[in-house]
Amino acid sequence: MLEYVTDAGDPRLSDYTRLRDVELRKSLEAERGLFLAEGEKVIRRAIGAGYPIRSVLTTRRWLTSLADVLGEATVYVVDDEVMTGIAGFQVHRGALASMERLPLPAVDTLLRSGEVLENHSHVEVPGQRPRRILVLEDLVDHSNIGAIFRSAAALGVDAIILSPRCADPLYRRAVKVSMGAVFSIPYARMDNWFEGLKQLREAGFQTLALTPDQAATPMDTVKMSDRVALLLGSEGDGLSSRWLEEADETVCIPMSADAMAAGVDSLNVVAAAAIACHGLMRSSDVAGEQS
Amino acid sequence: MLEYVTDAGDPRLSDYTRLRDVELRKSLEAERGLFLAEGEKVIRRAIGAGYPIRSVLTTRRWLTSLADVLGEATVYVVDDEVMTGIAGFQVHRGALASMERLPLPAVDTLLRSGEVLENHSHVEVPGQRPRRILVLEDLVDHSNIGAIFRSAAALGVDAIILSPRCADPLYRRAVKVSMGAVFSIPYARMDNWFEGLKQLREAGFQTLALTPDQAATPMDTVKMSDRVALLLGSEGDGLSSRWLEEADETVCIPMSADAMAAGVDSLNVVAAAAIACHGLMRSSDVAGEQS
Repeated sequence: MLEYVTDAGDPRLSDYTRLRDVELRKSLEAERGLFLAEGEKVIRRAIGAGYPIRSVLTTRRWLTSLADVLGEATVYVVDDEVMTGIAGFQVHRGALASMERLPLPAVDTLLRSGEVLENHSHVEVPGQRPRRILVLEDLVDHSNIGAIFRSAAALGVDAIILSPRCADPLYRRAVKVSMGAVFSIPYARMDNWFEGLKQLREAGFQTLALTPDQAATPMDTVKMSDRVALLLGSEGDGLSSRWLEEADETVCIPMSADAMAAGVDSLNVVAAAAIACHGLMRSSDVAGEQS
Repeated sequence: MLEYVTDAGDPRLSDYTRLRDVELRKSLEAERGLFLAEGEKVIRRAIGAGYPIRSVLTTRRWLTSLADVLGEATVYVVDDEVMTGIAGFQVHRGALASMERLPLPAVDTLLRSGEVLENHSHVEVPGQRPRRILVLEDLVDHSNIGAIFRSAAALGVDAIILSPRCADPLYRRAVKVSMGAVFSIPYARMDNWFEGLKQLREAGFQTLALTPDQAATPMDTVKMSDRVALLLGSEGDGLSSRWLEEADETVCIPMSADAMAAGVDSLNVVAAAAIACHGLMRSSDVAGEQS
């Protein structure tokens, strides 16, 4: 259903208000239970992943690009200037979609996907049994969250668990940087940071804390069990001392001694996460061959 | 030497003009042979790497933070508002330095560092003999360049070669994202893209072209020789067909078949570079143990 809108202030466009105002968007999106997808490819992935469309905002030029997947959705058509005025930036490939959020699974439900629960009359929890997961502690940068989801999805990590204070993977910038990978990898958010690792251990996960500390076990030589949770901290401070101490083992990515002497003493969190995910998946291919 | 400046338009500050205007900055920095370092840590690394200081721009609050390394350099002191007005953004840790560029080595000189040249009366080329290098083809995003330099330096890659069209590693944004790693890893820029790989081969480097194509040899199983050059293409198009075809071998990072089916069909270039650098350095540690 097409509706032509000429005024950036039109109340029908209120889902798309002030896209660069992070604080406003956070509260508006939480209240209305929505998120925004930007660009044809990402919108298609969101629809493909089953998120219902609230509306689409586009220009005449891009109107046909999504026609095959929009069904009965309301499409607001605006001029280029109105589009840029609303967004405050050049909209990638001329389309934004306001999508409904779906309820996130509980951490325990996600960790126990594919298991048969004996004390619940042998009910099988739907989904695939996760064996290799990432756990992100207090990562607040949306671009980093998006990039890490993209790497994790591409490399085959089964699920991601977020600490309570992690940034929202469905925030526009995270969705965009992830190229829509936030729709393809299951994730859940902890209620309780303090008891977070306990819940992982109870579900049978070995917990590995990634640290730049070169005294830790190199990632490529650690003995991994059937189920492994890799813990990743924020770029500035790294993992909390509680999680570092509580984890089964601390692991590191070996770095150059020369570089460290020259002050290049860490990888950025996106690079570290990519290497760690690669190591996680490599270990699941070669299980049993590790020394 | 302190000089207090009250007017953002003061000609003494012309090295710092319109920092967000990429095109203007490119031509201005090339003409004057300068680059800008931002923030205390990065400025210290630039000075430590031997780049001469043209001047420093700072505010009263940050004046003392660099006092021990500035020597006789001219320091322009401005108010916070003038600083923000000049920069067009919040300056990281309140200091910018205009530094003199140093001449880049020729590609051949860099590749032959540490070698004794028999046809030149046994002259030894200064520097360490590089064994593991990255070659970047037409990467134009300054943040990506900076992030890749940071990973390469941290993981111990010996040198980086840029194709003629790659973005400048000393552009402010690249320097900042690299955390100053652009000062610690030697690099050179090719004169000639078309003959670029020939020069690498002549210096004895095995050339490995990284591709998302999953039919290529997995990075972790490729047999590496004593000297390896890993070729990395731009995020959008990847490596040129010329380089892909001319390389000794194409290599890939194994990805999840499920993710590829869901459309998550590549890693971003920073993540791919990090995994590839890790693989390069891993192979140099375990040389001879590869199957």
